[in-house]
Amino acid sequence: MAPPSSEEPVCAAAEAAGAGAISKVLVVIAMQTEALPLVTRFQLVEAAADESIFPKGAPWTRYHGDYKGLHIDLVWPGKDPVLGVDSVGTVSAALVTYASIQLLKPDLIINAGTAGGFKARGAGIGDVFLASDVAFHDRRIPIPVFDSYGIGARKTFETPNIVKELNLKVGKLSTGDSLDMSPHDETTILSNEATLKDMEGAAVAYVADLFSTPAIFVKAVTDIVDGEKPTAEEFLQNLISVTMALDQAVLQVVDFVSGKRISDL
Amino acid sequence: MAPPSSEEPVCAAAEAAGAGAISKVLVVIAMQTEALPLVTRFQLVEAAADESIFPKGAPWTRYHGDYKGLHIDLVWPGKDPVLGVDSVGTVSAALVTYASIQLLKPDLIINAGTAGGFKARGAGIGDVFLASDVAFHDRRIPIPVFDSYGIGARKTFETPNIVKELNLKVGKLSTGDSLDMSPHDETTILSNEATLKDMEGAAVAYVADLFSTPAIFVKAVTDIVDGEKPTAEEFLQNLISVTMALDQAVLQVVDFVSGKRISDL
Repeated sequence: MAPPSSEEPVCAAAEAAGAGAISKVLVVIAMQTEALPLVTRFQLVEAAADESIFPKGAPWTRYHGDYKGLHIDLVWPGKDPVLGVDSVGTVSAALVTYASIQLLKPDLIINAGTAGGFKARGAGIGDVFLASDVAFHDRRIPIPVFDSYGIGARKTFETPNIVKELNLKVGKLSTGDSLDMSPHDETTILSNEATLKDMEGAAVAYVADLFSTPAIFVKAVTDIVDGEKPTAEEFLQNLISVTMALDQAVLQVVDFVSGKRISDL
Repeated sequence: MAPPSSEEPVCAAAEAAGAGAISKVLVVIAMQTEALPLVTRFQLVEAAADESIFPKGAPWTRYHGDYKGLHIDLVWPGKDPVLGVDSVGTVSAALVTYASIQLLKPDLIINAGTAGGFKARGAGIGDVFLASDVAFHDRRIPIPVFDSYGIGARKTFETPNIVKELNLKVGKLSTGDSLDMSPHDETTILSNEATLKDMEGAAVAYVADLFSTPAIFVKAVTDIVDGEKPTAEEFLQNLISVTMALDQAVLQVVDFVSGKRISDL
């Protein structure tokens, strides 16, 4: 057998490192206010009408571009066609995640967004968390087994190296379609042991799991759920500034992901 | 101009009647127990693995067949891959409706299923209703305009001739992801003026509207929400018998639809 040329071992090593390297990242975001700073940060461009991958009628919007060896697609469910507000909540998030997985075949999903936080569990305004677990808190089906289906608790894809390297807080996330919190929601959120409360995460996780796509959840705290101020007021007050913290954390995560394999996360 | 041959007017009339005649009907059903009697009734066959239109990983199940000049596809969200129960609720219903619209291009959607009924609004066990309106009752977003988006109230596709011909009751439908009803849900259901309460309808309507597909909602009452009995118990007790009433009503609707145009409904 001929000895390898001087280049060959280098190539082989590079190939080994490259084997299974993450190349396509899908960022799923619920609100335009949360999405635009990341669009700017990664210098993404909005998909033109003639390169739209989504079917006619879908308000879903896609931005895309290359960044440090990754192809990034950022999608958000867009504005409601009739009312003109962001299409927040589980149904829209599930739909755009599903369509994007099928059409873009991402290696990794990052669901980034704002969330309510529980100070009793250590959350403060502007904190950025990675969610270790997700569950729903507004799907009560008091029939055996259906009850577990409704709650839909699942562990998210584990990323011990991201947690260690970026020094992010870790907590459980509970998802529901209301911005406020009813007493029934609160009971379930407590039983879900959630530090964070959002309106999309568990739905994104459900769809990602169905199609075996690793998904991580980066959530920045805009309002303290167990605090004094009304959620809607506090949410709107902090949305812009907390979005900057979110933006910074997503940038760090993507920088970490660049050149890595899924198993390196 | 030559006079038309004796056949021509007949052909023209037949063509006019046929122009836009409904050919593809998509039936969306949440539970296997509700789906199987209709599968039998319309002699549908389950799509084999090699003719599956849904992506690998999706638990969604499709039955199909021809009936009185119509091609019928009946889909249900299938069993949860981990827990083995029917994938009820808005997220699964929205996903399977979306995928089916894209892949099957139906002319008409029939969302058939069981529902809770309010006796104060005239509902009794076994009654079958067509929903005139749908809305959500568990998506509270107390920010102007977002509040309306959350409720998502919309009129369904109007079918005055079906209502008249089949003598079905008509009422408003309110949708949420819980089988029970919390006080917060109740307040919204009252403000939605709902006679019926289900777990999928408004999500199916949302997706159908996005993609401009006419959708009708046939709902049979399994339990009285404002009655004495616990919902889960009454629901399970009546599920089989009420499904027969539902089955009969859907058959009548499909018989009526056969040979008609959308504008004839």
